[in-house]
Amino acid sequence: MSTHNGSVPGSAEPSSQEHTRRTLLVIGGAEDKRRRTLVLKRFVELAGGREARIVVIPTASSMAEEAFDVYQSVFGRLRSREVSLVNPQTRLETSEPSLAEAIDNATGVFVTGGNQLKLGQLIVGTPLHEAITRAYHRGAVISGTSAGASVLSQFMISMGEEGVAPRQRVSQLSAGLGLLPGVILDQHFGQRTRYARLLSLVAASPSLLGVGIDEDTAAEIVDERSMTVVGSGAVYVVDARAAVSDAHEARHAAPLMVSGAVVHSLPYGAHFDLGAAQLLDFQEMHPEVAVVTSPTDAHDTANAAAALRR
Amino acid sequence: MSTHNGSVPGSAEPSSQEHTRRTLLVIGGAEDKRRRTLVLKRFVELAGGREARIVVIPTASSMAEEAFDVYQSVFGRLRSREVSLVNPQTRLETSEPSLAEAIDNATGVFVTGGNQLKLGQLIVGTPLHEAITRAYHRGAVISGTSAGASVLSQFMISMGEEGVAPRQRVSQLSAGLGLLPGVILDQHFGQRTRYARLLSLVAASPSLLGVGIDEDTAAEIVDERSMTVVGSGAVYVVDARAAVSDAHEARHAAPLMVSGAVVHSLPYGAHFDLGAAQLLDFQEMHPEVAVVTSPTDAHDTANAAAALRR
Repeated sequence: MSTHNGSVPGSAEPSSQEHTRRTLLVIGGAEDKRRRTLVLKRFVELAGGREARIVVIPTASSMAEEAFDVYQSVFGRLRSREVSLVNPQTRLETSEPSLAEAIDNATGVFVTGGNQLKLGQLIVGTPLHEAITRAYHRGAVISGTSAGASVLSQFMISMGEEGVAPRQRVSQLSAGLGLLPGVILDQHFGQRTRYARLLSLVAASPSLLGVGIDEDTAAEIVDERSMTVVGSGAVYVVDARAAVSDAHEARHAAPLMVSGAVVHSLPYGAHFDLGAAQLLDFQEMHPEVAVVTSPTDAHDTANAAAALRR
Repeated sequence: MSTHNGSVPGSAEPSSQEHTRRTLLVIGGAEDKRRRTLVLKRFVELAGGREARIVVIPTASSMAEEAFDVYQSVFGRLRSREVSLVNPQTRLETSEPSLAEAIDNATGVFVTGGNQLKLGQLIVGTPLHEAITRAYHRGAVISGTSAGASVLSQFMISMGEEGVAPRQRVSQLSAGLGLLPGVILDQHFGQRTRYARLLSLVAASPSLLGVGIDEDTAAEIVDERSMTVVGSGAVYVVDARAAVSDAHEARHAAPLMVSGAVVHSLPYGAHFDLGAAQLLDFQEMHPEVAVVTSPTDAHDTANAAAALRR
């Protein structure tokens, strides 16, 4: 574990007005870090802009120090006031008071990509988890990308296979941070063809709404209900609440019967009600954003770190 | 053009009772030809079993003669009475009376895979097309696999890109045989990740129902309405009739906004009403079928032809 400050000039506290809403910025991975940085810019804005005090948690990454350097650099360029590192490597370390203190002082918490099982095992149910929940409820924006996105919901997809054909018991859930109840978050959605795994999970648990997020795209979710899409891809909602399915009896790996699921493909500018599972409005946006795709989060981190060194 | 008989012992005419219904057997490509042959067995059964007089149209295939040999062999093993070849290579040839005569004499017509644009250009709107329509209305089963499946509907997908993220104007339609109005048929659905292309097309034309079929799987459609699924994969229905979309104004290649489409994943034994777009019933089937997948139809034909020679 270590905490580390990378101060950026800035001043004043964020106004209390900005912090009455609970805000998540759930990112589908491989967000642009070098050009338009549309998604990360939004994160810094939500964290208070020049007053932002950001904690980065790169614990999921196999290259945690590099991942921190990359985000510290980006958030610095975006003029956030302070960027700190919280990087526990064992479950025991998450009890160290300095970690909770760092989170308690933050206006934004950013969880990087990597291995989401590691996040689940190290952080969920620990004092660090409690600190993140506290921060969320006092209005700090909580954001995660890729694995860091998945862990934000109550039920976290821990694995599954690619494709459009839902099959029985090839996807699995485990416990996440629970900041977004009633939703399963998935990431790298279009790029890794995760439609089938999300559909098969919500078919088995129709009370949960499936939300899949493309790379370089984020779902900005306020008060666990109002969702706005930001970025170059789309956010997909899969709603099986009215569907009929044989998910309770189909054999292992058999094609699943799922009839009557409702789907939504929501690009930048869509505004969606997660409670009613309905589109509220849509203002088409035409940003000239870079579409960034990487085979793995480690690859993405390595690329960004190499660019940083140049 | 050539016609060619491959007689199989058999007798009696199919009873008129069996032929009062209009029947399509729409196959998603790469159907098992060597082991359980579940889908092709169903075709022969629908064509009258031992009384079946089948016409194979391999015009779409780059290996038409080999494709014919393969299906002649399979349909022979399945004890159909007669297997004939209709293989025009120009649009002019489709006017030759012997082709229409062969179709007029058939209890089943089978259109192979290959290049569906060739099928569209050579056959649609010709006397051969008229003969197929006549055969369909007098109760002969009309079947096609892969490209041969796509051409059966009124609006035929002629191209499109893979993925789950629907995008503007990356898929195209052209005119098919029109035996199934109101539906867009797609094939190799799960194997080639064709969810996005089908969704983007029905988003632009919400009056049409999208029906995507997996490999080694068929949609058996009676009177253009009652659909039953046969085979080792699934049939997918995408219904955008109640969806909201920006398909009328989104820029080329932009992520499409499609909110509220209803989807159905229907394995073997599902029975579905294409008019109401509703599941009627589902009897789970557990056939031990071979799952056959091939990168291309030509590859599939070559494999089957090689097996035939052995």
